[in-house]
Amino acid sequence: MPQTSLTIETSGQGLYEFTEDAARFVRNEAMNEGLLTVFVRHTSCSLLIQENADPDVQRDLKAYFSRIAPPANDPSMDYLVHRLEGPDDMPAHIKSALTQVSVSIPVFDGRMVLGTWQGIYLFEHRDRPHRRELVLHLSP
Amino acid sequence: MPQTSLTIETSGQGLYEFTEDAARFVRNEAMNEGLLTVFVRHTSCSLLIQENADPDVQRDLKAYFSRIAPPANDPSMDYLVHRLEGPDDMPAHIKSALTQVSVSIPVFDGRMVLGTWQGIYLFEHRDRPHRRELVLHLSP
Amino acid sequence: MPQTSLTIETSGQGLYEFTEDAARFVRNEAMNEGLLTVFVRHTSCSLLIQENADPDVQRDLKAYFSRIAPPANDPSMDYLVHRLEGPDDMPAHIKSALTQVSVSIPVFDGRMVLGTWQGIYLFEHRDRPHRRELVLHLSP
Repeated sequence: MPQTSLTIETSGQGLYEFTEDAARFVRNEAMNEGLLTVFVRHTSCSLLIQENADPDVQRDLKAYFSRIAPPANDPSMDYLVHRLEGPDDMPAHIKSALTQVSVSIPVFDGRMVLGTWQGIYLFEHRDRPHRRELVLHLSP
Repeated sequence: MPQTSLTIETSGQGLYEFTEDAARFVRNEAMNEGLLTVFVRHTSCSLLIQENADPDVQRDLKAYFSRIAPPANDPSMDYLVHRLEGPDDMPAHIKSALTQVSVSIPVFDGRMVLGTWQGIYLFEHRDRPHRRELVLHLSP
Repeated sequence: MPQTSLTIETSGQGLYEFTEDAARFVRNEAMNEGLLTVFVRHTSCSLLIQENADPDVQRDLKAYFSRIAPPANDPSMDYLVHRLEGPDDMPAHIKSALTQVSVSIPVFDGRMVLGTWQGIYLFEHRDRPHRRELVLHLSP
């Protein structure tokens, strides 16, 4: 079945929208009905389907997750052991666990059935730039 | 492949079970083995597969999420910027991000393989009544 | 379509890797491209795709979730009503709601497209030993 990969270059924590890339893949496959699954091949970033109207939503989501999983040098995170790659390392795994590595979206009439305000985002949890690999799979 | 939509009318925050609606769709399609995916077309409600035996579980889940993501007029949420639709607006997006917009359940012998105590719920995060649209897709 | 079940015996809270079991199932089916979905038939354990290199990551994840959802006899959890099976009962449902009961992984060239450091885990949230049932489904 149709499958493709997608690379997203990130530059620090935050949400990176790729709705249009996913829509293009679905359009090109011209499958009338099906199921699109997006999978991210990493453990320190994740996927989110969220509001794409007001950018403040993305800003607030990022702020919220940074509060419930602050950097490892925050006194409340004293108990963390895994600190190999700096203070944003283990909180990145935590934020990934709290969100998703795969999301599935039905396709109807050749298009994803996203709601009016839904966008698909890569949620980057690391501070430094990364190249993130996603796999898109279209099932019947 | 078979697909249908489902509308759930909500009246405030909480869990709304629709296991029987999903089971009926699967039964009617008479597909022996397959995969049911449920997708919710909104960003301020979400999906949860949870215990359907003791209603206190649903009550406690609602209470828990309201504590980790309290209304925007709670002093601990001072930092939120997106407040367009009231104090339950941004916490609704947060609770949605912490749970799921899609869940997939294998079908075996013509029925979902849910465990004995598993029910499928729409988790409404807004206070006012809403009409919520879900899409159910059955893959081979 | 191909489907199998998998039983994992757990002995207390923590992460139990089953990447190799899933890989074997996919290998045996010899499907070149497809989508593997893993589903857990319980509401007090869940699924996680996480780093499988440094065991400290698993230890820290377990510690984190125990802090955001401590046992019901912790004063901060006073408000919980569902306490039928002990202080680890309701927090187990909460941790399950915060993670996933289903994950989907594309298969390419006969293998799951997991990233280098990704392992698939059952996340047990109960203290006592349990037999956990998972269903693995391979879609085209």
